[in-house]
Amino acid sequence: MSTSSVVPTTYLPAAIDQAVAAIQFDAQGLVPAIAQQHDSGEILMMAWMDRDAVAETMRTGRVCYWSRSRKAPWRKGDTSGHIQELVELRVDCDGDTLLVEVEQTGVACHTGRHNCFFRAIRDGELAEIAPVEVEMDKIGKD
Amino acid sequence: MSTSSVVPTTYLPAAIDQAVAAIQFDAQGLVPAIAQQHDSGEILMMAWMDRDAVAETMRTGRVCYWSRSRKAPWRKGDTSGHIQELVELRVDCDGDTLLVEVEQTGVACHTGRHNCFFRAIRDGELAEIAPVEVEMDKIGKD
Repeated sequence: MSTSSVVPTTYLPAAIDQAVAAIQFDAQGLVPAIAQQHDSGEILMMAWMDRDAVAETMRTGRVCYWSRSRKAPWRKGDTSGHIQELVELRVDCDGDTLLVEVEQTGVACHTGRHNCFFRAIRDGELAEIAPVEVEMDKIGKD
Repeated sequence: MSTSSVVPTTYLPAAIDQAVAAIQFDAQGLVPAIAQQHDSGEILMMAWMDRDAVAETMRTGRVCYWSRSRKAPWRKGDTSGHIQELVELRVDCDGDTLLVEVEQTGVACHTGRHNCFFRAIRDGELAEIAPVEVEMDKIGKD
């Protein structure tokens, strides 16, 4: 696993309050967050954040989500080591989607692929277009 | 407005059926779709598609969404001319998010900015970090 080369961005409480106030959380109290590798532009994954996950991400510089399947906070990489360090958090025009520019350690996808968007049409069939890079069962999925 | 330089990707019915079958639409029958400029990697916007919007996008090569505010199909660019031509549609690991690689004509955001993610913290304050490129009131928002 590569060692991160960035100093994570952290924000002061007043800035966190401004960002959170600009977000339109949905009826479940969640907002979709797109994670993009900050330098390559690769879209890594999309997951959901609640208010606490946004604040924790901005306060600590470690990207945290809300796991809808586990109904629990999800600090990405806690079990796998495949953390995301925050480079910048952006809020969209309507405040209902976030973009998190990150430095991804290891792989983003729970399948062991570098990003989650590995299915596309090839020769008329839905195919897997990216290889499994890490056997996640051996390191702990998260 | 620049002229598009791509030949839009279109898919045959059998491929469309495979893609649609792989998608986990939510309780409202929708799936979030991230639009990314195919060559620069810029994340343009995130919007929602229903089953018909996915099929129409893949059949025609013109990106179509479902407008949650208008509760109606939304073929992007019909009023503004700021269309998105499809380069590739990808389905994520869980089938609950789409990535659409596009060629954006004009600007993606209804505010006239090139993309929707123009708010970020600068000097401790939530600020607008991208300029308005097009006065959308003059050309018809969409």
